[in-house]
Amino acid sequence: MRIRLDLSYDGTDFKGWAVQPSLRTVQGTLEEALATALRVPSVRVVCAGRTDTGVHARGQVVHLDIAPESLTGSSGRRGDSPMEALARRLNGILPPDVHVRRALEAPAGFDARFSATWRRYAYRVADDPALVDPLVRSHVLAWPKPLDLDAMNTASRALLGLRDFASFCRRREGATTVRTLTELEWTRDETGIAVARVVADAFCHSMVRSLVGCLLAVGDGRRPPEWAAETLAGRRRNPAVTVVHAHGLTLEEVGYPEGAELAAQAERARNTREAMDD
Amino acid sequence: MRIRLDLSYDGTDFKGWAVQPSLRTVQGTLEEALATALRVPSVRVVCAGRTDTGVHARGQVVHLDIAPESLTGSSGRRGDSPMEALARRLNGILPPDVHVRRALEAPAGFDARFSATWRRYAYRVADDPALVDPLVRSHVLAWPKPLDLDAMNTASRALLGLRDFASFCRRREGATTVRTLTELEWTRDETGIAVARVVADAFCHSMVRSLVGCLLAVGDGRRPPEWAAETLAGRRRNPAVTVVHAHGLTLEEVGYPEGAELAAQAERARNTREAMDD
Repeated sequence: MRIRLDLSYDGTDFKGWAVQPSLRTVQGTLEEALATALRVPSVRVVCAGRTDTGVHARGQVVHLDIAPESLTGSSGRRGDSPMEALARRLNGILPPDVHVRRALEAPAGFDARFSATWRRYAYRVADDPALVDPLVRSHVLAWPKPLDLDAMNTASRALLGLRDFASFCRRREGATTVRTLTELEWTRDETGIAVARVVADAFCHSMVRSLVGCLLAVGDGRRPPEWAAETLAGRRRNPAVTVVHAHGLTLEEVGYPEGAELAAQAERARNTREAMDD
Repeated sequence: MRIRLDLSYDGTDFKGWAVQPSLRTVQGTLEEALATALRVPSVRVVCAGRTDTGVHARGQVVHLDIAPESLTGSSGRRGDSPMEALARRLNGILPPDVHVRRALEAPAGFDARFSATWRRYAYRVADDPALVDPLVRSHVLAWPKPLDLDAMNTASRALLGLRDFASFCRRREGATTVRTLTELEWTRDETGIAVARVVADAFCHSMVRSLVGCLLAVGDGRRPPEWAAETLAGRRRNPAVTVVHAHGLTLEEVGYPEGAELAAQAERARNTREAMDD
């Protein structure tokens, strides 16, 4: 049977998502906890977005395949479903910087990576000393100059749609840099912190952080709003675009279609995206 | 001259506000940074609310008195006022878990402690596994059972007004436990986390954490809403009331009157509250 887990984590003390020998990674930590909880020698999980070192998640999604009988070992409190019992058991094993928000039996055709139709990230910036808050310093970038969000949103709108984002991607051999950027908008949250909401079908490597680096240069007045569209049109990595720090970035949510579309989408994505980052 | 500083801090790694020999405290850390920034042998600050070990602040207020000439050493960037330069200099010296949000020349009669007319605290609780977020685990309590905020608010309303809060205070010799509780209300923030907004003229020791402990017992169904009023009426520390963990508690804001009332309020408070906690 296939299980879906929804995860949140504080990326500060992880060397990113993907397992690496002798490094503390989210995948490695989760797979170890799963092996313990399910009493099996090893478990492999597949995730929707392989976050880099220091990047956080509130809505990471993974799947794993297990033998149904391995669930019987997870004794639940009275009234817990087997999936609630599994989530509770995992949270008892996991360190405080990773948390299973829920566990579900995955619907037919579900693939955490290939069934996903969109990923949503947030990038958070405190652009005034009065906004800097040590309680959220793990996931908010402090920026020394005030940002003009109107200028940033003008620049952002010129980047939307099906585009070649080569200017904002770290090159990978044989990987396409064409993506559909659906949303890129800056607002201020109730405390005044500037938050970028960034949605695309998928992202290539360092894409959100490069987009944000470009837009911060617009926001603090070093570049005009047109610079974003000009950079995009260049279609090659532009060294003038800074890749901003990972710690301001959080994978917030992953979107999936309903029913039979889960398998159909996975099939399409497997064919077109096998060599892509997400 | 008297200076007002507005501070935020993550209380996790501090042994509370007040200076203690050889322990890391917020006051001690701030006073050391001020002595360095002002190039003086030592500085003493007075704060609005002496937070306990593990308690956080977003709106702590302090005052300190300095010789005006000690400011001339703080070289500012072009365009910075002397107070902006002082805040920037302090933030360059302070560790990442304490931050000066702003520095101001204090108005006449201002006393961070005695001029204050109200203090506002927040207590945050994630009462569902899906709400637990490692990114905010430093300042949100995880509670294993769902909370009925309506029942908690019914209980809360019975505690408002000028009351003897002895049932919710740790006794101190010669200190009054009479306070005016102006607001005590539970709502859910945009992420679903339960937040208590608690406002009073001042608080006695462990008062917010005891009130919250009482209300959590109402919220998760172990006690009826009337239990809060009954406990208050007992007028002595009730061992059935849990003092909840410090890490969910944040001093959010301190209120001051305008103009001449600053000195008048300080005079009144000095006479009535010298032996009180805040």
